[in-house]
Amino acid sequence: MTETRPASPGTQRPGGRTAKVRRAVLDATRDALAETGFHTLQMDRVAAEAGVGKTTVYRRWGSPVGLVTDLLHDMAKQSLPASDTGSLAGDLRANAALVRETLTDPRMGAVFRAVIAAASCDEECARALAGFYRTRLAEWAPVVVRGVERGEAPAGTDPTELLRAVSAPLYYRFAVTGEEVTPAVAERAVAAALAAARAGVFVDA
Amino acid sequence: MTETRPASPGTQRPGGRTAKVRRAVLDATRDALAETGFHTLQMDRVAAEAGVGKTTVYRRWGSPVGLVTDLLHDMAKQSLPASDTGSLAGDLRANAALVRETLTDPRMGAVFRAVIAAASCDEECARALAGFYRTRLAEWAPVVVRGVERGEAPAGTDPTELLRAVSAPLYYRFAVTGEEVTPAVAERAVAAALAAARAGVFVDA
Repeated sequence: MTETRPASPGTQRPGGRTAKVRRAVLDATRDALAETGFHTLQMDRVAAEAGVGKTTVYRRWGSPVGLVTDLLHDMAKQSLPASDTGSLAGDLRANAALVRETLTDPRMGAVFRAVIAAASCDEECARALAGFYRTRLAEWAPVVVRGVERGEAPAGTDPTELLRAVSAPLYYRFAVTGEEVTPAVAERAVAAALAAARAGVFVDA
Repeated sequence: MTETRPASPGTQRPGGRTAKVRRAVLDATRDALAETGFHTLQMDRVAAEAGVGKTTVYRRWGSPVGLVTDLLHDMAKQSLPASDTGSLAGDLRANAALVRETLTDPRMGAVFRAVIAAASCDEECARALAGFYRTRLAEWAPVVVRGVERGEAPAGTDPTELLRAVSAPLYYRFAVTGEEVTPAVAERAVAAALAAARAGVFVDA
C-alpha cells in the first residue's frame, strides 16, 4: 500500500464523501451549540441543517454526546499553531489574547459555554474536552521551552503549568463567576503568571 | 416597632414556619442538585422531598431557576468567616484549602457543578452565582488588607484580585479542563498568587 494509491469506495479519506458529511455535521453541531446550547441539541435538527440523512447521523454519532465529542476532537485538530514573537512575555500575551478573543466572541464563546456545560454532565464529553486542552497545551509548550532557553524563566519550569496559569483567570471569570474577561484581565493574567514563573513557582520539584 | 415585639402570624421571622419551609425546600434542592444535577431538577420532587405542598413551592419559587437562585443567596449568607492565621501566606493557604475541600467533596462538588451549569444557561442563576462569589470575596478581603498592613504585600494591592488569583487555578481545573484539584495544585496556586502579589501585579493602577 502506497500513499498515492487511490482510496477504495467507502474509505474515509480526507476530502472524500465521508469527510464532507462529517464536516457538514460538525459545522451544524457547532451552530446548534452556539445558538441554543447543549441541552437542546437534537440529532434530527443537526441532520436537517447539515443536509445529511438522519439515519447516517444516528448511525455514526449515536447521540448528542457523540456529536459534541467528535466536535471537540475536530476542534483539537484545528488548534492554531502557537505564537513565536521572540519573547516569552510576547508569546504569553498572544496566548492570553487568543483565549480572550475566543471566549468573548459571541459565537465561539457560546460554543465553549455549551461544551463546558456538556462536559459538566457527561463523562465522555469531559474526556474529550480534557483532550482538547491537552492538545492546546502541547501546541503552546514550545513557547515556554524557548523562553527558558533564552533565560526568561528558570530552568525546569513546567511549560504546561505556566500556560495553565495564564488561562485560569480568564476561564474562571468566563465559566464560574461570570465576570467580564477584559483586556486588562488578560494582561494581568500574563503578568501574574510571569512573576510566578520568575519566582520559580512552576519549577518541577 | 421594637426588636422584641413578637412577629404577627405569617411574618417571615427567622425560625418561624416560613423559614422552616424555606430551609426544607433549599435542603431538598441542594440534595437534588447533588444527586442528578440542574437539568433534571423537578419542582414536584423537591416539594415531596421537603415535605412541603407543591402549590407552596410553585408559588414561592416559581421554577427550578428560582430554587437555584434562592439556594445561592442562602449559600452566600452561610459563607464561613475568613481565616486569621497571622500571616497572609497562612490565610491564603487556608482559603485555597477550603476551596479545594469544597470542590473535591463528592456532595458539595456536585452541587457546585450543578450551580455552575445552571449559571451557564440562565441569566438569573448567573447573577446569583456572581453574587455568591462577591460575598465570598468580601468576606476574605480583610485577610489581604491585614497582610498589606503587616508588609507582606505591597500597598495598594487589590484584595479581591489576589483572592481571585488563588481560586482561579482550582476552579479552572474543576469546571473546565477536568484535571484533578490536588493539594499540590492548591499549594501552587497560593505560591503563584503570592509571588505575583509581591511583584506588584495586583496593585491598582
